[in-house]
Amino acid sequence: MIYLDNSATTKVSKNAADKALYMMCENFGNPSSLYSLGFSAELEIKKARHTIALALSSKDGEIFFTSGGTEANNTAILGVADALKRRGNKIVISAIEHSSVLEAAQSLENNGFEVVFAKPDERGIVTSEEVSRLVDEKTILVSVMLVNNEIGSIMDVATIAAAARRKSKNVVVHCDAVQGFLKIPVNVGRLGVDVLSVSGHKISAPKGIGAIYVKKGTRINPRFFGGEQQNKFRPGTENSAFIAAFGVACEDALKTMAESYKKVKELNAHLVSRLNEIESVTINSNENCLPYIVNFSTNLVKSETMLHFLEKKEIFVSSGSACAKGKKSHVLSALNLNDKTIDTAIRVSFNCDNTLEEIDELVSAVKEGIDTLQHIK
Amino acid sequence: MIYLDNSATTKVSKNAADKALYMMCENFGNPSSLYSLGFSAELEIKKARHTIALALSSKDGEIFFTSGGTEANNTAILGVADALKRRGNKIVISAIEHSSVLEAAQSLENNGFEVVFAKPDERGIVTSEEVSRLVDEKTILVSVMLVNNEIGSIMDVATIAAAARRKSKNVVVHCDAVQGFLKIPVNVGRLGVDVLSVSGHKISAPKGIGAIYVKKGTRINPRFFGGEQQNKFRPGTENSAFIAAFGVACEDALKTMAESYKKVKELNAHLVSRLNEIESVTINSNENCLPYIVNFSTNLVKSETMLHFLEKKEIFVSSGSACAKGKKSHVLSALNLNDKTIDTAIRVSFNCDNTLEEIDELVSAVKEGIDTLQHIK
Repeated sequence: MIYLDNSATTKVSKNAADKALYMMCENFGNPSSLYSLGFSAELEIKKARHTIALALSSKDGEIFFTSGGTEANNTAILGVADALKRRGNKIVISAIEHSSVLEAAQSLENNGFEVVFAKPDERGIVTSEEVSRLVDEKTILVSVMLVNNEIGSIMDVATIAAAARRKSKNVVVHCDAVQGFLKIPVNVGRLGVDVLSVSGHKISAPKGIGAIYVKKGTRINPRFFGGEQQNKFRPGTENSAFIAAFGVACEDALKTMAESYKKVKELNAHLVSRLNEIESVTINSNENCLPYIVNFSTNLVKSETMLHFLEKKEIFVSSGSACAKGKKSHVLSALNLNDKTIDTAIRVSFNCDNTLEEIDELVSAVKEGIDTLQHIK
Repeated sequence: MIYLDNSATTKVSKNAADKALYMMCENFGNPSSLYSLGFSAELEIKKARHTIALALSSKDGEIFFTSGGTEANNTAILGVADALKRRGNKIVISAIEHSSVLEAAQSLENNGFEVVFAKPDERGIVTSEEVSRLVDEKTILVSVMLVNNEIGSIMDVATIAAAARRKSKNVVVHCDAVQGFLKIPVNVGRLGVDVLSVSGHKISAPKGIGAIYVKKGTRINPRFFGGEQQNKFRPGTENSAFIAAFGVACEDALKTMAESYKKVKELNAHLVSRLNEIESVTINSNENCLPYIVNFSTNLVKSETMLHFLEKKEIFVSSGSACAKGKKSHVLSALNLNDKTIDTAIRVSFNCDNTLEEIDELVSAVKEGIDTLQHIK
């Protein structure tokens, strides 16, 4: 199997899976229980929280575990809007956000909020000028992702946050960092964000675990109410197995981040150079994109057709975000690409275990697909 | 180790843990991915959903996976209130609900809702008469748990639901069935409920997974927005590993439910009879309670003191709900018990692997504790 869809999800690493298993079957106490079996589960949660905090250069008390990126993003958007609704009603988000940010924001429109979209430039980058232009004194929340999940474009979140605050002093800045986390350094202080979302299953932890960073003092309301867990900001018995596994995956990724980046940059360069051999192919990811993601279009074969052709050779790529389930990409549409390019787009996303040989196999298969599959009109 | 705190959480069964491991490391695709690796993960989710539906006698399409009981209960209370806020503003819940129902309901009071509490009788049972007395035409939601988590009292939810509908025709009835699920039969049709919550980690599945039943046609709004997952009612990449593990644990528990109940009833009878040997002890669970839970008070030694004494002998019980982390029990308070009884309460909760010998060890230890520990005044 050649798995090149690591931005959709990753295989869980052996270390993370072993930790989850240990928590499920041995260290299985309820972390809130007032005896040693509970304390030892709670200790694992504390360790994991500390690791996530370390990775984000935040304080431990600013990290809250969630059921994943979607919960983290929804908590950010809806929680801040709810807390600040009396201060203002305008929200500025980028037009290329993940659906969990886009749709959470749009759900607020029915409750009197105005949601305004910052457009990306032709490279797929949302600039501070564009965001700043839209922010005014009524604006309570700005949300711009660190790395776009479909093309890998990187936003200058630090400059965006500073520019937004110049227009609206107390604006809360949220960043969906799911695709950038542990691929490039993410320092919440340097980014100047108040709230930030990360997810486990993009970094070899399991699906179903994520975290939200909330800077101390940020006004944000919880989405759930209940027990005493997580300082009551996110109650409910903690998913101790996956929290601990997330911690382990995070620790491992922190150690190898620089080395992995270097290796993936080589994979990326090789793929782009090999794809450029194919006349019809255009690359939708710009040169400054995160090397882990390459989005290209054959301009000849429909994405789904190519995807299934590759699948028969046990090569797994995607046509865009898995969460969109084949719907037309709002990201590629925002780049003003033509329909042919959008309809024939393929996203390749690496992890550091992929090889140059796998890329050669992919490119050969894409060539064969172009030669043998039906072309779109 | 003698683990007698199975209502707080359970050890994950081998079958469930094996399934989780298989999903994490082999069947690891994103269930939304449009290729075989995604489909095969999605298939496991469908199988698990079917098992949960079978266990509740519902349709598959009425089951949505959540991150646990707290999310399910919050979705029920807040989602129904949000959907029906224009129809009425009154909510009737029982006074002995889990904190995730109580606090979700109370959070609505700031938004113009009136929350009214149905009191239990001296046995810890909330009756249909009491609920019916409080429901009026403005009432949009009634929430009564099936089995109380601290004392094991069982509510006649079917009669309560019918009585509530006689007073308010279109009222939505929610039931937190977390503690009764797969211990006694739970048939959503027979209970006459519209929304029902269950959790994995009380039935030997991992912590971090639960489900909500929503009867087709029920007006309820989602708490999260985003991708296409779970019919958009609960978007976000599914926790495929724990969903599949939940399905396996549910399948196993379904097969052994009657047999386990019988065995636990014997354990329960033995414990109660042995406890009755101790002069100072009073039993807070009534005779018709779920046999899996026995709540008693020594009336002499503070709960925490006894709990830690037992812990040194590797016997794990609790002083009440783990989620409350040692706060004074609102359930025992609602029973009008005196402070001494409340402050010395111990909850024992079985699973079918516990033995008569373990119970004898517990009772000996409790006796020793009473003889050697400081008595409260």
